[in-house]
Amino acid sequence: MSLFRKSVECLSAYVPGEQPQGGGWVKLNTNENPYPPSPKVVEAIKKAAEHNLQMYPDPLVTKFREIAGELFHVDKDWIIPGNGSDEILTLIMRTFVDPGDYIVFPYPSYVLYGTLAEIQGADFEYLPLRHDWSLDLEKCRPVASASKVLFVPNPNSPSGHCWNMDDLMTIRPADGVMVLDEAYGDFCSIPHRGELLHGNYGNRVIITRTFSKSYSLAGIRFGFAIAHPDIIAGMRKVKDSYNCDTLAITAAIAALEDQEWMKQNVNKIKETREYVVQQLAELGFHVIPSEANFVWATHMTGLHREIFDDLKDYKILIRYMTFPGAEQVLGDQRDGLRITIGTEEQMDKLISALEEIVPQLKSKV
Amino acid sequence: MSLFRKSVECLSAYVPGEQPQGGGWVKLNTNENPYPPSPKVVEAIKKAAEHNLQMYPDPLVTKFREIAGELFHVDKDWIIPGNGSDEILTLIMRTFVDPGDYIVFPYPSYVLYGTLAEIQGADFEYLPLRHDWSLDLEKCRPVASASKVLFVPNPNSPSGHCWNMDDLMTIRPADGVMVLDEAYGDFCSIPHRGELLHGNYGNRVIITRTFSKSYSLAGIRFGFAIAHPDIIAGMRKVKDSYNCDTLAITAAIAALEDQEWMKQNVNKIKETREYVVQQLAELGFHVIPSEANFVWATHMTGLHREIFDDLKDYKILIRYMTFPGAEQVLGDQRDGLRITIGTEEQMDKLISALEEIVPQLKSKV
Repeated sequence: MSLFRKSVECLSAYVPGEQPQGGGWVKLNTNENPYPPSPKVVEAIKKAAEHNLQMYPDPLVTKFREIAGELFHVDKDWIIPGNGSDEILTLIMRTFVDPGDYIVFPYPSYVLYGTLAEIQGADFEYLPLRHDWSLDLEKCRPVASASKVLFVPNPNSPSGHCWNMDDLMTIRPADGVMVLDEAYGDFCSIPHRGELLHGNYGNRVIITRTFSKSYSLAGIRFGFAIAHPDIIAGMRKVKDSYNCDTLAITAAIAALEDQEWMKQNVNKIKETREYVVQQLAELGFHVIPSEANFVWATHMTGLHREIFDDLKDYKILIRYMTFPGAEQVLGDQRDGLRITIGTEEQMDKLISALEEIVPQLKSKV
Repeated sequence: MSLFRKSVECLSAYVPGEQPQGGGWVKLNTNENPYPPSPKVVEAIKKAAEHNLQMYPDPLVTKFREIAGELFHVDKDWIIPGNGSDEILTLIMRTFVDPGDYIVFPYPSYVLYGTLAEIQGADFEYLPLRHDWSLDLEKCRPVASASKVLFVPNPNSPSGHCWNMDDLMTIRPADGVMVLDEAYGDFCSIPHRGELLHGNYGNRVIITRTFSKSYSLAGIRFGFAIAHPDIIAGMRKVKDSYNCDTLAITAAIAALEDQEWMKQNVNKIKETREYVVQQLAELGFHVIPSEANFVWATHMTGLHREIFDDLKDYKILIRYMTFPGAEQVLGDQRDGLRITIGTEEQMDKLISALEEIVPQLKSKV
């Protein structure tokens, strides 16, 4: 008899993303921001480190909630912070989903939704997508309707595209909540600022946000959800009392207060992205138009694993991803390459390497 | 129909501990260390703040696990870090306990065990205690035997006493794990360094530790568990990939490497505790001999709520606690006062205040 819960026993062992420890790598595999956080963030952390680390943080993180509320035009009671937006997703699962319930999400998208459902002993279904990644609304509606939680990453990963908000509003769960996972939301051409929360369906929507991407703070685990105060009150019952630490709270507040820094970096990344997309196209890649800090690229040769491996010889790390059963969306190519947009210099190295690698591929077909 | 899981709907709303925001308070209510962390910790944080916060931390926190492993005489694969030891307790619940299972813990002890069981949809039972807080071993055995997890805080809160390890080893779950919650372990007269893990039952024991108490880092959320690698591998499947942040990891490593600083503070607190116990006794309090950084005090008048309230007039905050149904242990007095041991100066203020408050109590009986 196993000591573990059956649902845990059946889970695959966690395989962390590659984090090369030696220097010299161009790391384009985990959608980190290539630019550092605002100097004001660094200064705030250094100042906070000198005072009262022996005391517990504010368990309700009130000051942060006030500032985030202003940014999204809601009262602070609409905000709950967490130890990264992954913790927020975990809290949502533990608050709304019982064993035997099911959740829904698009596929391919963020694999964590399915893992969290399995840990909870719940089931999951995929939202039916068309080959251009658009939602097959007729087929989506019945699947979404009976679910407890519908997770929609917007922009999506690995595709980087956004789903239409009006479409999404027609496929909501009848007795559940819709989660708009906006980890990459600041990179959208029209960033969402919580307008949806004030509509008819506003008390059934949860928006999640992270500081790991646009704010250059993946090292600081901090994210938050925005939702109706009744939703937040339920999630607050489930969270640990002190789930956010003093330095992370300090960093998040300072980061929110320097919107200019964030936006400048976001704009630089978007500019670089357009350049990279063009270069990749010239090398025979098909790239989906992206509204995030990464692109999903497939190559006409289909030799994605080989390209990924060859790039390692150049000390360039991108993400090779495979999605079994996703023929409907991906066609014959069930795999591809997710490439984080780094600095211009980093992307030049990538393109130069690909210019050497791609012509050799024909011999491998 | 509620949106929430039934077990969440039924939970009481979370009421955070009092965290007075204005200055001037003597805060003796949440067992924080009155002394700051090692200056080496502060320096390490300031240095880490300047580098690479835009990158994710090492998801396996390898360097910390190596150093913690050395301290507890185990390989790094016996260690799993978490966002405070509360997260570790949550991970244990989600790894081992299915809805319908039950867990066991002493009562009065840490209320979070019961809350976490309720969130998981599981039940709980109390370990039968005698009036001197000792375990009623004959009655404990059948209760513990069928449980999935037996949680034993050692030293216990609010009592501050330790249970005998040999006794504990005779009441283990037949098909579950025993968790020794050693949040206050460094304050014990004979600190435990993981010897138990190497005994016959070693692959069924989980020891949990925190940096919030002895290491003066409650503001940094960091704790860890020590257990057989098979146990750790299961827990690792359930944790978020990046559950520990770069600055917290940095702080924890620097704190572990300055054992001298931690031990000096622990010794100061113990000395102050002996003085406080003596003073409280002279004021008519009954105090249980404590092996932690707090004491559990009951007064001959039974007017604990009044003493707690009166102390607020002196801007002194302690913890008033009530344990319904705990007559077997607490006798007629089902409530009492848990007082954190602060600096000598803070405790002098407490004793001076009590010297004014206690003589007035007779008029309130």
